[in-house]
Amino acid sequence: MSRATLGIGKKLASLWLPLVLLSLATVARAADPLPSWNDGAARKAIVEFVKGTTTPGSPGFVPPADRIATFDQDGTLWVEQPMYAQVMFCLDRVPALAKAKPELANTEPFKTVLSGDRAAIAKLPQEDLVKVLAATLTGMSVEQFSADVRQWLATAKDPRWHRPYTELTYQPMQEVLQYLRAHGYKTYIVTGGGQDFVRAYAEKVYGIPPEQVVGSALGTSYGYDKEGRPMLTREAQLLLNDDKAGKPEGIHLVIGRRPRAAFGNSPGDQQMLEYTRAGDGARLAMLVLHDDAKREYAYGPAQGLPDSKVGTFPQAFYDQAAKQGWIVISMKNDWRRVFAFEK
Amino acid sequence: MSRATLGIGKKLASLWLPLVLLSLATVARAADPLPSWNDGAARKAIVEFVKGTTTPGSPGFVPPADRIATFDQDGTLWVEQPMYAQVMFCLDRVPALAKAKPELANTEPFKTVLSGDRAAIAKLPQEDLVKVLAATLTGMSVEQFSADVRQWLATAKDPRWHRPYTELTYQPMQEVLQYLRAHGYKTYIVTGGGQDFVRAYAEKVYGIPPEQVVGSALGTSYGYDKEGRPMLTREAQLLLNDDKAGKPEGIHLVIGRRPRAAFGNSPGDQQMLEYTRAGDGARLAMLVLHDDAKREYAYGPAQGLPDSKVGTFPQAFYDQAAKQGWIVISMKNDWRRVFAFEK
Repeated sequence: MSRATLGIGKKLASLWLPLVLLSLATVARAADPLPSWNDGAARKAIVEFVKGTTTPGSPGFVPPADRIATFDQDGTLWVEQPMYAQVMFCLDRVPALAKAKPELANTEPFKTVLSGDRAAIAKLPQEDLVKVLAATLTGMSVEQFSADVRQWLATAKDPRWHRPYTELTYQPMQEVLQYLRAHGYKTYIVTGGGQDFVRAYAEKVYGIPPEQVVGSALGTSYGYDKEGRPMLTREAQLLLNDDKAGKPEGIHLVIGRRPRAAFGNSPGDQQMLEYTRAGDGARLAMLVLHDDAKREYAYGPAQGLPDSKVGTFPQAFYDQAAKQGWIVISMKNDWRRVFAFEK
Repeated sequence: MSRATLGIGKKLASLWLPLVLLSLATVARAADPLPSWNDGAARKAIVEFVKGTTTPGSPGFVPPADRIATFDQDGTLWVEQPMYAQVMFCLDRVPALAKAKPELANTEPFKTVLSGDRAAIAKLPQEDLVKVLAATLTGMSVEQFSADVRQWLATAKDPRWHRPYTELTYQPMQEVLQYLRAHGYKTYIVTGGGQDFVRAYAEKVYGIPPEQVVGSALGTSYGYDKEGRPMLTREAQLLLNDDKAGKPEGIHLVIGRRPRAAFGNSPGDQQMLEYTRAGDGARLAMLVLHDDAKREYAYGPAQGLPDSKVGTFPQAFYDQAAKQGWIVISMKNDWRRVFAFEK
């Protein structure tokens, strides 16, 4: 700074001071990596973990190559109520399927799905749902499937907010993904949902490339199309059931390293969190509790919250979290903002 | 440059000129990303592919996120003769296994392996070899297995060069890996060998992290050790047979993108090369032909080379390569140097 600049008159300084303070406040906000988080134990745990594992010389320092963080998707990164988006996708595909195979129109469970009777559809037993999933998720090339998912996402709307499903990601979790990546962490999705379903949008929606999506995976079979071009066809064979014990098993298969941090929201994530925390050094395990009926949904039945068929959070799981040192994120108290589209 | 520097006398200049030429030559050598490659079609194809796909504005430009290159390991990145290193590892583990389970000493095929009779061991039928592999590759935790592989590699020597197996990687291929990575490519190993076996050393030996190793994979099962700590145990269940059609299937499972470049050396790599080339835009498919008995090994039986039980290269495969535009690398003619330890 030159002497001329320093020699600014006192009158001018009195005008400048508020501007300087304002811009300092802006800088502080811009520098906050987690603006959608309220101050509290959850936010503190994330910041301390990131600082402790990435500050050179810190006793908990983790070399960049070992910085792996895994995130469940449904209920952890985006809304899973009233039904998983992938199930909605499968149900929405049935009419097109019945057009190609007219005999399905008079066959259950396709007949019920085609009726559009939501109450009847919701009552379909598990084995019927599996039939719908198998019919709508298999038999096509992997490229065709990916294109189908993208096309559906471009038009389908969530029943509550009437927005594309891809807008229903949690802004605080998006900030955690970015914050970890900015500190050299590789962020992975580890989902019980379909690997290829999530891969179709994960790069655009979360900044997570296909090779960093671990999910329930169907086998594919290599063959050739009519023109003799190589193709991979999706088969009705479950290669990896990426839920519960399948999560650490899937992590080993695809990543081959134990995560340093893991995020989930239901007992399907228990083993992933256990496995993550069982490693040495600093480890972070967190669970999202949906206790905010106003801004999102409230379901448990932990802490007296209403029970749910999708993504439960039982009281025993809540108690286990406290015992194991897994940090529960209260959507209601820890999140200043839930969605990016909120004002 | 100052006037004083430019005003250097003619006599001095005559002394400087050779020095300048010498240092220019050094710069040229240092800038050559493939110093172990002779000039020829193979080297040219690699350089043109890398320049064409990574130069902004080039018609074949590939965005960084899509830059995926896959490499077979045995016979492509390191020596596979006279027997795959992993099979040597399994055979070497039998004595320790028999110590823990003495009943094995009188049971075939373990009895033959323990005899040390190389000729008899080489004659063991496929199903006996599978018994040895199952007994030596399964039942332990994934961490224990990784530690066992590292310990073996630290002491085991190749029978011809009497060097650790990890020194028998091909220097020209190491240069290709580095050259691709320097241009934003993610390099993957896609091997018929065991995924966890290769992961134990790939980061140190090739600069390829565990999550970038796709290989034949056993299932693991999640459980708890005696102290109640979570563990993954290696099971005798083949989850992914990463050979032939299994290579593109494994690539889809773990990577989820079609490679831009693929390197192999035998019909086990055919489908990976086909799949790679079937994508649009610039694609590179290459095969290493072992035609150098003096510096490494010579085996085909393509081009009149001796036949081999390990890593064959049939004439039909050679003809197919020419037809498909896959470029055959002649070890003898294309490689100036095979190993880093050569003078």
